[in-house]
Parts: sequence; structure tokens; C-alpha cells
Amino acid sequence: MARPLFDRIALVGIGLIGSSLARVIRREGLAGHIAIATRSADTLRRAEELGLGDSYSTDARDAASGADLVIVSVPVGSSGAVAAEIAPALKPGAILTDVGSTKASVIAQMQPHVPAGVHFIPGHPIAGTERSGPDAGFPDLFEGRWCILTPVPGTDEAAIARLADFWQRCGSRIDTMDPAHHDMVLAIVSHLPHIIAYNIVGTADDLEAVTKSEVIKYSASGFRDFTRLAASDPTMWRDVCLHNKDAILEMLARFSEDLSSLQRAIRWGDGDKLFEMFTRTRAVRKSIIEAGQEIDAPDFGRHIAAHPEKG
Amino acid sequence: MARPLFDRIALVGIGLIGSSLARVIRREGLAGHIAIATRSADTLRRAEELGLGDSYSTDARDAASGADLVIVSVPVGSSGAVAAEIAPALKPGAILTDVGSTKASVIAQMQPHVPAGVHFIPGHPIAGTERSGPDAGFPDLFEGRWCILTPVPGTDEAAIARLADFWQRCGSRIDTMDPAHHDMVLAIVSHLPHIIAYNIVGTADDLEAVTKSEVIKYSASGFRDFTRLAASDPTMWRDVCLHNKDAILEMLARFSEDLSSLQRAIRWGDGDKLFEMFTRTRAVRKSIIEAGQEIDAPDFGRHIAAHPEKG
Repeated sequence: MARPLFDRIALVGIGLIGSSLARVIRREGLAGHIAIATRSADTLRRAEELGLGDSYSTDARDAASGADLVIVSVPVGSSGAVAAEIAPALKPGAILTDVGSTKASVIAQMQPHVPAGVHFIPGHPIAGTERSGPDAGFPDLFEGRWCILTPVPGTDEAAIARLADFWQRCGSRIDTMDPAHHDMVLAIVSHLPHIIAYNIVGTADDLEAVTKSEVIKYSASGFRDFTRLAASDPTMWRDVCLHNKDAILEMLARFSEDLSSLQRAIRWGDGDKLFEMFTRTRAVRKSIIEAGQEIDAPDFGRHIAAHPEKG
Repeated sequence: MARPLFDRIALVGIGLIGSSLARVIRREGLAGHIAIATRSADTLRRAEELGLGDSYSTDARDAASGADLVIVSVPVGSSGAVAAEIAPALKPGAILTDVGSTKASVIAQMQPHVPAGVHFIPGHPIAGTERSGPDAGFPDLFEGRWCILTPVPGTDEAAIARLADFWQRCGSRIDTMDPAHHDMVLAIVSHLPHIIAYNIVGTADDLEAVTKSEVIKYSASGFRDFTRLAASDPTMWRDVCLHNKDAILEMLARFSEDLSSLQRAIRWGDGDKLFEMFTRTRAVRKSIIEAGQEIDAPDFGRHIAAHPEKG
């Protein structure tokens, strides 16, 4: 059997992303040893019941000690504390990476703690579902999805190539990007959609004239689509909002400006403008399907998934 | 063989809803004869190629003539013109219904043309996908979904019961509601979500600092969910905005107010408030799944639909 890509991989945090990594690392034989750490004793016990790793600890230092690759998968607000905690245990030549949805803040938090000789390469796999915790992960999560690396200038090229190789074996495609640009791109493709989804579900929940039961019964007419993103992990999303504030505020300002313009067209009955606004957006979905980033079936394939035998 | 529910059903409009009705009417044997009408000669030809009906015409009067049930499935802005056109052909005792997403406006447009002795019962099946046209329909579309009837006071109870029976045989569950209340409920569960989705896709499409290619590549991080609703039929949605203006403006105002409050929490770094806002919304999705209005699988079941053999 071929030697694994890394002798020891440490997974700090074993939620949706961490546990998906554990599963694909095992399936693809990418590590000689998978060391798992998470702060919560309950979560750690669950990871052990699921057999996700080879060793388990509530102390991130235990897992990181002697690891060739350390992957930090925690809410971005905890990145600095985790880096400070594991820094003394990191071995020279090790690669340290993360999976956080914001990059400038994660770099600012982690970089100061990284010992000389350790290759710190921030990363972000663009993949997920609305579920969280070690039960939510699955090994195909990264299949065909992009993983963005945002190495700081001067990072060892061989280490970057090795991390890129790892993600490709997990099924991902690789891009590298400046951290600030990453944060701007993610603000529009991910952060704004989640914030808008949380907001509209909150607005519906607050209505007096429409009952909660009505919102639920008739949700198939559009509303239910938003409830998926709005069911995402609140801690993760609180941290994203706090740690990518400037880019998010910029995107929110643009969104609100555009919405005011659309609202004005509705108020004044400007059918031509509405038709034009509603026409240009169809092409975007077509491009996403063509790029392999969306299923080519109506309604997200819900009807197929509900009746796989007809698929 | 049992006698069909109606001797002759006329479908005026043969898009997603009309063609789904044609298919389920055929499968369930609900009509002795299915008469199809649509203004577009191309669409009519396609409906005939698909074998959706028993007779075909570009003249709605031809189809409606002698029908026991006439179902108008056109953009709501065309309801009045269609009613005026078919009125002289409607036979006494016939049921006339529609499937429009707004009800007060449709009643105002159609009611004045309805001849004495014809039972006009406005309706709205809460079902759909982002696709349109006669190829987009499928017979299971209404399965488990609600159909809302908004009969005006004084409508013949037997006719209402007969129409309800028809929709139930199509797979639907029935609710009846006041038209104004319907329009308020749909403004939040359907109209606002579509408008917001169109808007965010437009905002992303306009950015200078983020390329279209980036938006598409990384769309799996949230954005792609919105592109589904934003790929819906522009004519239909232009008409909805023009014909449910007051309720939509009210919901837009509430949404924007809530978004400003959320934006302020982001600007001032109010993590507790963000956490609270992001926590309450999870329960809504759970209720929708429990009510059978959403698939109980992560990510809308995309992973299952993409690999039905693993389902």
C-alpha cells in the first residue's frame, strides 16, 4: 500500500467540515493517523462513537503535537485562541491551515502565534450544508467544489503544493487568492445570502396578520428555500458577521440600494423595468449549472430526492 | 370504468401549471375530454406533440365552449382579457377557476365578465418550480401541496365542493380563505422571497470588484440557492408585483426595517444580538419539514438527487 500523504493529520474541531474531512481522509487513505480534538466532551464522544479518528482529545495541543498537517475547523472568532493554544505543540515543517469563511481576520488572529518553521496556509473549502456537528459530515462534501487558499507572501511553495494536493485528493478544485479579495467575493456569494435568509425568516416569524402555521403550510411557494440557509449554525454566522464586517456592510449597502430601486418600480407600476430586472437573472443560474456548481434538475432535484426510484 | 369527474375540462394556458394539470387529469381520468388553448402557436404545437390534450386551439373560446370546468392558467395580468374573451362561450353550470398567485386583482378583473349561472371560484395551487412552459410540467407537482380557494360570498357550495374534489384528486390539500388575506399571506411566503432573490442576483451581477466567473464558481456557498427563484418566469413575476402591490410594499417595508436593524448589529459588533437573530430561525425550517412541506435531507437533497443510487 502506498504511503499516506501525511503521517499524522490533526483535526481541531469536528463539526460539519472537520468530520467530512475525517471521513474523506479515511476513505482516501490520506493519513497514517487521524488525531481529533474538540473542546466539547460530548462532541468528542460522538466523534469516537462514529469512529472518525484514531485518537481523541479535548486538548487541541494533544492532537496537534507531532502532526504533519493541522486543520483548524472552528468558528472564525475562535481561530486566535486555538492558534495560541496549539502553537507550542506544532512541529517544525508542519503545515497549519484552517477552513474559515473569512480570511483577513483569521490571518490577523493566527499568524502572530505561528512558530518559525511552521507553514501557515489559510484555506477555505467552498462547501457545506445547513447541518452541523460530527453526524452532519459526509465524505463527498468537497467533490467538485472549490477550495480557496490565501497564502501570505513568502509562504513555502512546496508546502502550498502539498496542501493543494491534499484538497484535490479530497475532491476539491484549487484556487489561490489574496485574502482581502477572498473576503469581498465571499461577502457576496455566501455572507450576504445567509444574512438575507436569516432576515426574511425573521420578518415572516414576526408577522401578526399571518400565522406561523400559514407561513409553514404555504412555504413551498418560495419561502422554504430561504429557511435552509437560515438553519445554519448561529455561532459560525455570528462570527462571520463580526469578522468580515467591512465587506459585508458594503454588500448590504448595494443590496439595499438595488432593493429600493426595485421597490420604487413596484410602487409606480413600472412593468417594463420589473420585466427587465427579472429577465437578466435567469442566465446566472444557467451558468452555475453549466459550471457544475448546481444540479441540473428543477427545484434543486427535490422531487428526485423524495422519490429516488423515479430518478 | 367510472364516469370522469368532468365531461370536458378546458385548460386556458399550458405552461408549468396548465401542463401539470393536463398530465394529472389524464393520469387520474378526471376528464372525458381535455381541451387546450394557448395564444402562442408554437406553445400549442409543443403541447400537441406532448399529447397533453384531446383538442387544441389558439382561441380560448374554442376550448372553453361546452366545458364543465375551465381552468385559466395565465400570468395574472392577462386574467381580465381572458375572462372577457371566453365569457360568451361559457355554458350555464360550468365552473370557472384560475391558478393565479394574486386573488383580489384576479377577482376584480374576471368577475365582471362572468355570465349568470357560471360558478366563478378563484383558486391558487401552492406549487411550482422555476421552470416554465409545457415541457416543465409533471403530474406529481400538486402532490401534498395546498390549494387555496377564495370563493366570493354567495358562491354555490356544491360547485365549491366539486372543485375541491378535483384538486384533491390532483393530490392537493384544500384551504379556503378570504382573497385579501390570501394576498397578504402570499406576499410573505412567495412574493417577497422571489423579489429578494431577483434582487440579490442582480446585485451580484452588477459588482465590479468581483467577477461573474467568481460568483458562479463559488456559488455553492449560499448564492446558488437564490438563483433558483430568480430563474422563474419574468412575465409571471412582473404581473404578480403589479397586481399585489400594497401587500408586497408592506412586506418589503418590514423586511428592510429588520435588515437595517441587523446591519446595525453588524456595524456595532453586537454579537449577542446576531446570535439571537440567527438562533430563532432554525426552528422554522424544522416545522416546515415536520409539516411535510420540505424534504428531510440536508441541502434540499441535492446530494441524493445527484446520485440517486446512493439514496
